[in-house]
Amino acid sequence: MIVFINGDLVASEEVHIDPWDRGLTLGDGLFETVRVHQGVAQRVFAHLKRLNHGADVLDIPLGISDEDLVHAIAMVIRENAIEEGTARLTVTRGVGPRGIAPPEQPTPTIIITAESLKEQNAEPVQAIIATCTRRNERSPLAGLKTLNYLDNILARREALNVGAHDALLLNTIGAVAEATTANLFVAIEGQILTPPLKDGALPGIMRADVMAATGATEQSLAPHAFGQISEAFLTNSLGIAPLIQVDDQVIGNGEPGPVCIRLQAMV
Amino acid sequence: MIVFINGDLVASEEVHIDPWDRGLTLGDGLFETVRVHQGVAQRVFAHLKRLNHGADVLDIPLGISDEDLVHAIAMVIRENAIEEGTARLTVTRGVGPRGIAPPEQPTPTIIITAESLKEQNAEPVQAIIATCTRRNERSPLAGLKTLNYLDNILARREALNVGAHDALLLNTIGAVAEATTANLFVAIEGQILTPPLKDGALPGIMRADVMAATGATEQSLAPHAFGQISEAFLTNSLGIAPLIQVDDQVIGNGEPGPVCIRLQAMV
Repeated sequence: MIVFINGDLVASEEVHIDPWDRGLTLGDGLFETVRVHQGVAQRVFAHLKRLNHGADVLDIPLGISDEDLVHAIAMVIRENAIEEGTARLTVTRGVGPRGIAPPEQPTPTIIITAESLKEQNAEPVQAIIATCTRRNERSPLAGLKTLNYLDNILARREALNVGAHDALLLNTIGAVAEATTANLFVAIEGQILTPPLKDGALPGIMRADVMAATGATEQSLAPHAFGQISEAFLTNSLGIAPLIQVDDQVIGNGEPGPVCIRLQAMV
Repeated sequence: MIVFINGDLVASEEVHIDPWDRGLTLGDGLFETVRVHQGVAQRVFAHLKRLNHGADVLDIPLGISDEDLVHAIAMVIRENAIEEGTARLTVTRGVGPRGIAPPEQPTPTIIITAESLKEQNAEPVQAIIATCTRRNERSPLAGLKTLNYLDNILARREALNVGAHDALLLNTIGAVAEATTANLFVAIEGQILTPPLKDGALPGIMRADVMAATGATEQSLAPHAFGQISEAFLTNSLGIAPLIQVDDQVIGNGEPGPVCIRLQAMV
């Protein structure tokens, strides 16, 4: 595999990541996962807009233009001959001295990888409501795609351990925020709704496109409401998947719903 | 610098960390910071006990005994000729395929570094109450020393930006949890108190020792209470520092308190 790191394309086994890189030592960074379709990164400027916003909030000076990042992503896709798959762009605050105080003039580490992935996320999902942890809607990190993914990992593991595919995370006041790597949409009485960002949902790139395509509106969602909705689905940059069950609440008739099936064409 | 990585002692520039290491891509790991005094790692078995507990909660099989870790830490201290300083032990879930689901049989990455540090954390601290984020006491991660440090980094940066030294983090219901890299103790009417773990405090190694030495008890603490206390201090493995001011609340007479000064001898 060929990896882009700080301006160079190198074989993955020759990548040097400093053991004092704050991405590794403190999770001090951001990432984007971009779908690759027919060898081309999809919605890449929307991803870079979110990345730049995150870098502003975290005060990480990227030091590279969007155009150069797009070019670097394209090179990694080409060098690895990815037709259908994903590219991942990781930005860390770079190497720092001991301690958590950010260095005054950080030199970020920028890593791009890409790999093949044959299928979109389109298979029906049975989810649980995670009980092991809560999403912290009181943190600005809830709105950023950071390297701090452990709460989501714990929730996903809880789901897998009981034979479910994914978990929905509640925020600290008990509203549904999102799934572990996807946003949530539900259809109630003909309306398409999605949890608001203030409830701890990540501002997903696909979420924004689905909202625009469906006229969906933001509304807080209680975890016991799934029995009363006609359909639900999960969106991320790699696909739109029907959500057919949450704990013991079967959604609609337990089959993929028509809105979800229609939207899958836009991925 | 000589670094221990997965059984080998290598020069830091020759360390190979895989770009798919989940420590880097997802913050999926733990760490410990151990004080080195007279060339010897201090309280090392207490640190390893906490690390092992964290690995159990995260389901990361360390695959190395405490004795071998102690030996590895000692080797890194010796190879780098550290007399007074710190050693850091980082454990990640290792390399994984794309996505957040943990691999079924992970091979953890274990990294040990050490460096000199002349002084303990003993200087008086002026802190703010962080307003930019909250500590999520509803997550099991609040009780573990994980690689997900971004909330603390944001809070520390907020403090530094206004000329303070550190920030105290409130939890989601407004109780004080801890500082960004230290536990908090306060003296009220002759009693020594510290926020309970359920409020989101990390179970610090020094915290436990200070509780034992002082008979301190756990009690929730409101952010407006600092004007009414006689002294406060911050503890971590690298020192015990007087906390003399929180926002505009001067603590006691604004000087290091007697309990803090007495305890500094035990670091």
